[in-house]
Amino acid sequence: MAPNDPLPVKRIGIVGAGSMGSMMALGFSEIGLDISIWDISSEHVKTALSNKPEGGPDDHGKIDGFTEISEFADSLKNEDLKVLVFSITHGPAADEVIEKMSDYLGDGYIILDGGNEHYRNTERRQRELSKKGVIWIGMGVSGGYQSARRGPSMSPGGDKEAIQKVLPLLERFAAKAPSPEDTKESPCVAYIGPRGAGHFVKMMHNGIENGMLSTLCEAWGIMKYNLEMGNDEIGKVFEGWNEEGSLKGTFLIQIGSEVCQRKKTPKGDEKGEGKGHGGYVLDDVLDKVVQDDDSSEGTGFWSVMEAAERHVSAPTIAAGQFLRYASGERAERLKVAEGLQMPSPRKADVQDQEAFIEELRKAVYASFLCAFCQGLEIISKASRDEEWEVDLTTCIQIWREGCIIQSSQIADRLEASLAAEHNSKEITNMKLLKPVSQALSLHFPALKSVVLKATEWDAVIPSLSASLDYLKYCGGTALPTQFMEAEMDFFGAHGYDEPHVEGEDPGKASKGRHHYEWRPA
Amino acid sequence: MAPNDPLPVKRIGIVGAGSMGSMMALGFSEIGLDISIWDISSEHVKTALSNKPEGGPDDHGKIDGFTEISEFADSLKNEDLKVLVFSITHGPAADEVIEKMSDYLGDGYIILDGGNEHYRNTERRQRELSKKGVIWIGMGVSGGYQSARRGPSMSPGGDKEAIQKVLPLLERFAAKAPSPEDTKESPCVAYIGPRGAGHFVKMMHNGIENGMLSTLCEAWGIMKYNLEMGNDEIGKVFEGWNEEGSLKGTFLIQIGSEVCQRKKTPKGDEKGEGKGHGGYVLDDVLDKVVQDDDSSEGTGFWSVMEAAERHVSAPTIAAGQFLRYASGERAERLKVAEGLQMPSPRKADVQDQEAFIEELRKAVYASFLCAFCQGLEIISKASRDEEWEVDLTTCIQIWREGCIIQSSQIADRLEASLAAEHNSKEITNMKLLKPVSQALSLHFPALKSVVLKATEWDAVIPSLSASLDYLKYCGGTALPTQFMEAEMDFFGAHGYDEPHVEGEDPGKASKGRHHYEWRPA
Repeated sequence: MAPNDPLPVKRIGIVGAGSMGSMMALGFSEIGLDISIWDISSEHVKTALSNKPEGGPDDHGKIDGFTEISEFADSLKNEDLKVLVFSITHGPAADEVIEKMSDYLGDGYIILDGGNEHYRNTERRQRELSKKGVIWIGMGVSGGYQSARRGPSMSPGGDKEAIQKVLPLLERFAAKAPSPEDTKESPCVAYIGPRGAGHFVKMMHNGIENGMLSTLCEAWGIMKYNLEMGNDEIGKVFEGWNEEGSLKGTFLIQIGSEVCQRKKTPKGDEKGEGKGHGGYVLDDVLDKVVQDDDSSEGTGFWSVMEAAERHVSAPTIAAGQFLRYASGERAERLKVAEGLQMPSPRKADVQDQEAFIEELRKAVYASFLCAFCQGLEIISKASRDEEWEVDLTTCIQIWREGCIIQSSQIADRLEASLAAEHNSKEITNMKLLKPVSQALSLHFPALKSVVLKATEWDAVIPSLSASLDYLKYCGGTALPTQFMEAEMDFFGAHGYDEPHVEGEDPGKASKGRHHYEWRPA
Repeated sequence: MAPNDPLPVKRIGIVGAGSMGSMMALGFSEIGLDISIWDISSEHVKTALSNKPEGGPDDHGKIDGFTEISEFADSLKNEDLKVLVFSITHGPAADEVIEKMSDYLGDGYIILDGGNEHYRNTERRQRELSKKGVIWIGMGVSGGYQSARRGPSMSPGGDKEAIQKVLPLLERFAAKAPSPEDTKESPCVAYIGPRGAGHFVKMMHNGIENGMLSTLCEAWGIMKYNLEMGNDEIGKVFEGWNEEGSLKGTFLIQIGSEVCQRKKTPKGDEKGEGKGHGGYVLDDVLDKVVQDDDSSEGTGFWSVMEAAERHVSAPTIAAGQFLRYASGERAERLKVAEGLQMPSPRKADVQDQEAFIEELRKAVYASFLCAFCQGLEIISKASRDEEWEVDLTTCIQIWREGCIIQSSQIADRLEASLAAEHNSKEITNMKLLKPVSQALSLHFPALKSVVLKATEWDAVIPSLSASLDYLKYCGGTALPTQFMEAEMDFFGAHGYDEPHVEGEDPGKASKGRHHYEWRPA
């Protein structure tokens, strides 16, 4: 669709006027749509309406607010296709809103659920609502509230025909990635697959995000506590990483450079946060990651559950999640600290700091790439299990801009790797792709060196060290699990295969042919 | 109950004549019960009947086999209390058998499900079968097939009154642990809690087992591939560890010493496995842990899922599970290895091998204790969530003998630690218990040293390194998550708390009070 083609509808409804919903209202209005926004809280609606779209009145559509569902529904009556975007907390909260609206929902409704919903809930709603003729689309929306306005990355999954109907809207709204040929930009949204595929892909985006967040904060910790660098200095390092090399164009690093360098000001921000004379905003942030303590987010720990259930190794991602739990329970942690008496991070003994920081950059890259491999492999496994036929290349493309895990060099490498495959829907292991294994192999020495030094210095590096061991066992030809297998055969008669025996070595990953009676019962 | 008191029933039924079911038939017959054993496969029944109880005819009960359900049910008609022990693969397989038997099940039936069932399935069956007057007990049975015969460790959960009725049977059958006062032995079975509590505790037993298996095989790998020790030599080390010190009386180490030292014989075992002239049985075992590739076991990966869902950090356990997945896919792994080109484990450069092995012993102990902390904390969290009131002391007691994770010194320490608490049902964090944190603190330097050296030598040590980082972040007062929290506030407005502000630091693990507008939308 060309940028100036007419949109398939004039007005859409947005359900939920929280920070994401109200920002999407602005964003959609700025592509020319009229917006009806509903929330049960008149306060939320008021706040949403107080945000003004940019440009003159001809540059954007109108935004009308509602707290009455009947009036909200009525406002869409002139549209043949009634498009609603849900931006509601997942789970029971979303079910309640659907229940409230159910008298008005029927044929002609396409609902895009932009919340972080669990894909099984999405699939349940698709089944339930299809009875009323309502088409429910599980659509991941990534990029946080800034992107929700300026153009997020979106992963819609469900009825293909319905998604194709609304795709022109979504493409206009989505973040745009430069195309490889530089001829046109490509929007960061695409049909992902049937049923819950879209929400699944968003969940794993957040899983990868977890692994990256953890890796990067570990690198920050090494610079702060071991190298004893100042905030500005660390910020400059991140700036450099973001500008060139294998971490070029990585959103989390780019914002990280801002986070490090942001100074307090006499007035602070609009609400007076970050107020002060000198000093850094970052220094006012406690080491307590409290997000999702109440499971209202979900995606992070669901990712770990999927890895476990679908038998995919994802230690980088899991390490990030586990670090977060301990971080959140700061009160308990301080008490534990009294007993455990862990050593404080030690000052690094580094001859050539610049060289070490270059090593650190490579280690971060390796660990990021591990997180991507793990997340993509979980998607791939799920896609095969559920017959979704998700194309991993599409995932990489929609993650190029607008979303939290965007990283242009990593995306280039992954896309090139996948392009060389006959069928990128059938990938079982990302490390089988040559450009991926080459990059990992090349960066392994740096990762090892950083893990060694940081361990020596008592830095906290769960994801970095998990990535290191992950690479060793994913590419190990003689794992210590030989002994584990023998032990399990001893007490559980689990059965083993023998080395160098055809059909057994390497053979299948299924119960081995031999049981030795180590100790008769 | 005194050892010679009459048992509450004369005959029990066993459903399922696989390796566990047939061994339990022998075990229960040897405490004087008559047994009816049923299986759909006449082959299985035949095999079960071919095993003979020990002693003269007066020392044990009769074992009768059935493939017809009506005859099986009929054989129990003289018992007021009809006790069945299920030993069936969990999930749909067990449901099918229940369905087949449903015409015969009714009032007076107590069914002990000894399979590795998921506790949610157990709870569903409890609800469904209670409508027919059948009491369904989810009973973890640990110890493998040898213990199933000689006396396992059991964790029954469900209707308390019913469990108390069958407890005399179970106590007679169970493994016995020496009591602290050495006056009498205490049986390794107890009422765990209502509903799914028993199966939950068994699941976490297996989770802890995973962490221990992984830790121990990593230590084995270091001795084999880095120290280049012979099988016998490694076996002797394990023998020593099992005999004295903090790892004394650890089942996995004891059998490990046998596994390492077992030589092939000209005839092999009964079925001719392990046949050969010279050489070790262990050398015939491939590094491919294939157990549960088909999810027929479940408990290992369910444990990781529970950790994630209940927000408990369990990296030692998860690392073991993830290692297993990569291990099982040996064919893929060998292909990945060609691209990744990981370094082979290097010969250790160790001046004093004995001293290093002592360090290794301490590192293994620390990592085992981490696995116990993680598993117990998950149980504790689940118990609070589900209102089960599980007493962790009871878990330790039933795990003293008969089960895979038995480790007498660890049990002593944990029991003493818990005994000092007012309410061991309310523990949120095992590292808050002084004797636990003292032990961890004391062994931390060895764990760190081993991780450093093994990393230098390119050994595969996912659980050991995960344990090291776990300790650092569980007892860290200034975690790098400060930076993570700031990043999440940047893009997600997640909200942070501030250091040194009352009510915020340490404050609760819930959404922080501040959001700084790092970048307006």
